[in-house]
Amino acid sequence: MSKFVKKNRDIPVEHYINGIKKADRVVLAQAITLVESNAKHHFEKAQQIIEALLQKKSKSIRIGITGVPGAGKSTFIDSFGTFLCEQGNRVAVLAVDPSSQVSKGSIMGDKTRMERLSRHPNAYIRPSPSGGNLGGVNRKTRETMILCEAAGYNIILVETMGVGQGEFVVRDMVDFFLLLVLTGAGDELQTMKKGIMELPDLVVVNKADGDNKEKATHAKREYNTILHYLKSYTEGWITKAVTASAKEEEGISEVWDIIHSFQEYTKKNHLFYEKRAEQQRNWLHDLLKQELYRYFYNHAEIKEQLIKTERTVISGEKSVASSALDLLNLFMEKKI
Amino acid sequence: MSKFVKKNRDIPVEHYINGIKKADRVVLAQAITLVESNAKHHFEKAQQIIEALLQKKSKSIRIGITGVPGAGKSTFIDSFGTFLCEQGNRVAVLAVDPSSQVSKGSIMGDKTRMERLSRHPNAYIRPSPSGGNLGGVNRKTRETMILCEAAGYNIILVETMGVGQGEFVVRDMVDFFLLLVLTGAGDELQTMKKGIMELPDLVVVNKADGDNKEKATHAKREYNTILHYLKSYTEGWITKAVTASAKEEEGISEVWDIIHSFQEYTKKNHLFYEKRAEQQRNWLHDLLKQELYRYFYNHAEIKEQLIKTERTVISGEKSVASSALDLLNLFMEKKI
Repeated sequence: MSKFVKKNRDIPVEHYINGIKKADRVVLAQAITLVESNAKHHFEKAQQIIEALLQKKSKSIRIGITGVPGAGKSTFIDSFGTFLCEQGNRVAVLAVDPSSQVSKGSIMGDKTRMERLSRHPNAYIRPSPSGGNLGGVNRKTRETMILCEAAGYNIILVETMGVGQGEFVVRDMVDFFLLLVLTGAGDELQTMKKGIMELPDLVVVNKADGDNKEKATHAKREYNTILHYLKSYTEGWITKAVTASAKEEEGISEVWDIIHSFQEYTKKNHLFYEKRAEQQRNWLHDLLKQELYRYFYNHAEIKEQLIKTERTVISGEKSVASSALDLLNLFMEKKI
Repeated sequence: MSKFVKKNRDIPVEHYINGIKKADRVVLAQAITLVESNAKHHFEKAQQIIEALLQKKSKSIRIGITGVPGAGKSTFIDSFGTFLCEQGNRVAVLAVDPSSQVSKGSIMGDKTRMERLSRHPNAYIRPSPSGGNLGGVNRKTRETMILCEAAGYNIILVETMGVGQGEFVVRDMVDFFLLLVLTGAGDELQTMKKGIMELPDLVVVNKADGDNKEKATHAKREYNTILHYLKSYTEGWITKAVTASAKEEEGISEVWDIIHSFQEYTKKNHLFYEKRAEQQRNWLHDLLKQELYRYFYNHAEIKEQLIKTERTVISGEKSVASSALDLLNLFMEKKI
């Protein structure tokens, strides 16, 4: 990659902008690499490209897909994505793993995970970027979405990977959120993070095939009971549970029908665009806060002092409020 | 109050420390007023008092009490608090209302709300402080807890009031969290904030009396079903639902028995102290972040620029990341 990075210093911004507008996959990949780079001069170039490609009203739908380990996310995305491509859609698959410091999913890995989809000319698959500065994975994924949409991908599938706060991060960057589960709500819900059951717009009980079909139908009923008690994430929309089999390709078109009705409903009452505007505002503020922390917690003297401070407040030697004030004064006095 | 504020400038720190150690209610009230003051010289004095009274290992139990509007929080605390006082405990009742800018609950108001308890010599009732600087209500309540414990109150009841993030704030400052509900889980849960069902260590279906008894028993079963699916907040502890009637004083001693077993269980496996240490650490970091935001968002030039920036990122004129960077650079350049 370092070879490419050196070479692309001379490539003008217009090359990327025009290439993406013409849906050139190679140029799209190069632009995403710029977005994902942690180098300062790449950041500036990437922002120029993004600003030229920002759409006032994007025509895409952004779908987040999460699920318990083993729920068959890859197989589901392979089936679902292929189905969408065959209907004439152009589908981009992005992965988000906020816990990854180095890129875990390689392109080869993702291509093996989604064999059929990766061969489809209408599909574009991009693995999870690694962290780094200025908003990390969160920013990189959002900006990659913008580039993919500008290249004509009208359906963006964002998959959460790894452990951590991935679900909450992705929920706030998509229009529709799908939770993939398996049989047995009781056991499964115990392993999920708090509050996750209140995020999805649809719960899909996967692997409803063969011997498992009956168990899956039972799990669907259990999930519907729980969902009945919880508040829907999207105002006025009733989150339901359905069964599907990615392997036997059953229930896949029904999932799309539900997403389609959701889109119609939220566009009719303007919730769709209101939510997108809110997401933009949230993203700005998240980024501001995140970077403010980063300045603070990476400050050499703060770092050193903080270890001592934690110890004294836990042992009850010093009050929390006066300790915090001392640290903040230290930070404000110093030039960053 | 301003008269008192002027006068107490000359009262030495030792007066407060010794008075509180002697459980002098008047001095305790004066010290809490210092803690609640937003004046800088009061803050410094308050911190000196707190540091002198910090206990290495507090013997108190801190119980958070929340509930849907109309669930009968005041009546429950009146009954429960009086029961605890009659058993020889000394009970302090604090209210937390993060949404209040000015103090909403007056002392008279709280005394009327909890008539029996407010007359008991073992009880001390303090209304919610108003916001203000450096950690606001959150800090003031935590510090008031420290003062009350130093004055010999061994049970601290922290009541959440108003709307907002009160439940989450209080959950992180108490050992045990109790959710008060009414009949009909289905309707009620729809009105609760997301994730709240995963906070309590005990759910109490209140008003289980007269005609309502049967409905309350049904609601208890419903809540136990939901709780079965959700993850307990406290590791290894199974959160259950029980019925109680504050009016007929039924189920009140059972609630205390459950809290008592909880305390035994968590002290035996050290979770009790580990959680308190974690809460101290969280408090420090929350305070740091909160104040860092406050510096940033109250900066005159940032304020002005932010309104414009929000507009341009929502309309798609400028990228979020470069907008955020511009604002941060503006902040870092300026001396605060």
